[in-house]
Amino acid sequence: MREGFKDLQGGLFASVHKADVGNAVSDLMKRGVDLMCWADPFFPDLVIPQNVKQSVIDSIDKGMATHYTMPIGNSDLKQAIAVKLKEDNHMNVDPDRNILITPGSDSGLMFAMMPFIGEGDEVLIPAPSYPSNFLNPKLLGGIAVPVPLKEENNYQIEIEEFEKRVSPQTKMVLLTNPNNPTSTVLRRDSLEKIATFVIEHDLVLVVDQAFEDAIYDDIEFVSIATLPGMWERTISVFSISKGMGLSGFRVGYLVADDKIIDVLYGCTVNVIGATNTSAQIGAIAAMKDRSFVKEYNAIFDRRRKAVYEIMNSIPGVSMAMPESGFLSWVNISKLGTSAEISKYLIDHANVVVNEGTPYGVGGEGYIRIVHGCYKDDNVLYAALERIKQALIQLDIDKGVAAHG
Amino acid sequence: MREGFKDLQGGLFASVHKADVGNAVSDLMKRGVDLMCWADPFFPDLVIPQNVKQSVIDSIDKGMATHYTMPIGNSDLKQAIAVKLKEDNHMNVDPDRNILITPGSDSGLMFAMMPFIGEGDEVLIPAPSYPSNFLNPKLLGGIAVPVPLKEENNYQIEIEEFEKRVSPQTKMVLLTNPNNPTSTVLRRDSLEKIATFVIEHDLVLVVDQAFEDAIYDDIEFVSIATLPGMWERTISVFSISKGMGLSGFRVGYLVADDKIIDVLYGCTVNVIGATNTSAQIGAIAAMKDRSFVKEYNAIFDRRRKAVYEIMNSIPGVSMAMPESGFLSWVNISKLGTSAEISKYLIDHANVVVNEGTPYGVGGEGYIRIVHGCYKDDNVLYAALERIKQALIQLDIDKGVAAHG
Ligand SMILES: Cc1ncc(COP(=O)(O)O)c(C=O)c1O
Ligand SMILES: Cc1ncc(COP(=O)(O)O)c(C=O)c1O
Repeated sequence: MREGFKDLQGGLFASVHKADVGNAVSDLMKRGVDLMCWADPFFPDLVIPQNVKQSVIDSIDKGMATHYTMPIGNSDLKQAIAVKLKEDNHMNVDPDRNILITPGSDSGLMFAMMPFIGEGDEVLIPAPSYPSNFLNPKLLGGIAVPVPLKEENNYQIEIEEFEKRVSPQTKMVLLTNPNNPTSTVLRRDSLEKIATFVIEHDLVLVVDQAFEDAIYDDIEFVSIATLPGMWERTISVFSISKGMGLSGFRVGYLVADDKIIDVLYGCTVNVIGATNTSAQIGAIAAMKDRSFVKEYNAIFDRRRKAVYEIMNSIPGVSMAMPESGFLSWVNISKLGTSAEISKYLIDHANVVVNEGTPYGVGGEGYIRIVHGCYKDDNVLYAALERIKQALIQLDIDKGVAAHG
Repeated sequence: MREGFKDLQGGLFASVHKADVGNAVSDLMKRGVDLMCWADPFFPDLVIPQNVKQSVIDSIDKGMATHYTMPIGNSDLKQAIAVKLKEDNHMNVDPDRNILITPGSDSGLMFAMMPFIGEGDEVLIPAPSYPSNFLNPKLLGGIAVPVPLKEENNYQIEIEEFEKRVSPQTKMVLLTNPNNPTSTVLRRDSLEKIATFVIEHDLVLVVDQAFEDAIYDDIEFVSIATLPGMWERTISVFSISKGMGLSGFRVGYLVADDKIIDVLYGCTVNVIGATNTSAQIGAIAAMKDRSFVKEYNAIFDRRRKAVYEIMNSIPGVSMAMPESGFLSWVNISKLGTSAEISKYLIDHANVVVNEGTPYGVGGEGYIRIVHGCYKDDNVLYAALERIKQALIQLDIDKGVAAHG
């Protein structure tokens, strides 16, 4: 077995704490706890936009659901995505030459990295970030080089930290923007620094924009591929799982220059096969009428403010206001380690949240709470209230507040 | 860019002849030709078993279609697959420890190989076989080593051919059984030779059983993982795309020993993400009542005999009786190269068939005809008749028959 795989554990022989691996989550659900660790909007309640629902059902009822689409994707979907890219991302792309549909963006991320990362190649990855980012290079024989982001700097780019870590083996920068778990949006200034760095060192950039749909407080969102000199060296990774709430559909897409896409087209069958046919038809409907995304954002906007109030009212706990999406990144370092607190919350608040440590350097001392769960705000608020009471109790038990 | 990707072409800058890449197929469809090159049962007509259809629609209408399943797969589906594996494959597996659901078997195949194949590793692959097999090792930095199979030996294993090619770099044997394009079923004897070889040389075996559902003439079908000593070193790759005709659902599954599966579980999110939720629910229905597969097989059985008659009645053309599935592997070497003949058939019979060459060593001089296309036998037979007339004319034009 190859080096990068040797130490992997999936939970069959040792207990594994990553919430998204193996049967850990379903086992916890069976125990009846509230899952606030699953970045899947409204989970476990059913929410599906009417237009999407109808088009998917039609595709099964009288359409082509049982048949393959082109491996590279349904061309009507690519057309609809090109329109969205123009409107939302200010990217002008040719749907037949710059877009590749993938079965979700997880496999899309891996596919985007494969042609560039091999034995000994290094990938610079701001941290904390999406856990897959740190394992992906290793699976390709390469090395993940975390570049610490700081909370006090609102998790923006300090380019000196990149300069310190770049080496002749560096091949790629892997960005998650907006970031998961911090929900922070990289400002134009941060992205320009990265762009200059990537061009100077002749690197490839992969940017995961899975959380781009919901940005609050009029923060400017910049797709880094639109910065000068970046189009030819950027692969942008997108998903309909997060802002569109269509996680179970497993549809994502890659956008890049045609020289890169030609290579990916040339091995699409090998790496990803093709994407589910009726899900692509549903995605067309979703792209064409994105009004439901605005409704979702209003819900998440309201909720983020509530979580912010509640968490910051707990002694020893703090969080910044989420800038995007439906994730809260909560500093619990005064109360314990992220492993201790998440374990404690299962036992004392009947909720599962994410430990901060899988998000890499800078994750210890934090928990991630998915406040996008449940359809009904009140179910969420009740769970948050239980978290609050449990942590207040813990604070008292530990005497943290008393000690200052 | 890595070595294995450098020469890949997806059709944007040069015309690419692989039927399953890029827009080649959709471009041909627009021209109104009959597609007999797409291994997708009944394409382009809609055929979906009633039980599958209803369960998928329900999952969208009132179920969990928008939510992720566990990345490793819906556990009810894994239960249903375990029952099928017992009944059809004589494999006794623990659904929670030996099965991993994948978004189709193409990505499943790649995933099965990834932990084992890296820089310089060699993979022995009987040829002709599924085109992806020869590119996959290259994409992982390894080397595909084709091992020729011979028509006169009914494409069975000659183990001397493997012995000649094994080296210290050999890590894996990659089998496709039943084979695509030849449709041949490896007999117990062939599989026992391979098993002994794999064990002696301490290799891993990946076997792609995508076409296992339809085997004719009571030929014994053996799942190689059931042979002594093979369970621990075999990853079996399955699909619902072929025999079940649910290609657009994108559901496949890997079956292996729990030591291997634990590693795969540990990076499932990274490599494949998760599989479409409602397609998995449809797959449960399909697994639980597989009677429709028998109906499909009766259709394909009838058709293979018709193709066999028609092809062997053309001067200079021959084929063996298909042993499985819905593929005809036709020897046209007396009339021209596989590129010439397939081009000729587009122009003179208005059909697209597959050239033999992408199937590797032994593919030149053959074309592959997918006789599983269309719902109505008569549409297929009409297309076959056009092929016959066109090839008879070609034979006359070239004077092949006259020359003997
Ligand atoms: C940052 C980020 N990228 C990508 C993904 C994968 O999403 P999907 O494969 O559903 O598109 C996730 C899911 O949690 C994510 O958080
Ligand atoms: C031999 C073989 N294996 C695997 C596949 C991939 O099938 P899927 O990804 O639809 O499961 C195919 C499709 O043509 C095939 O012919």
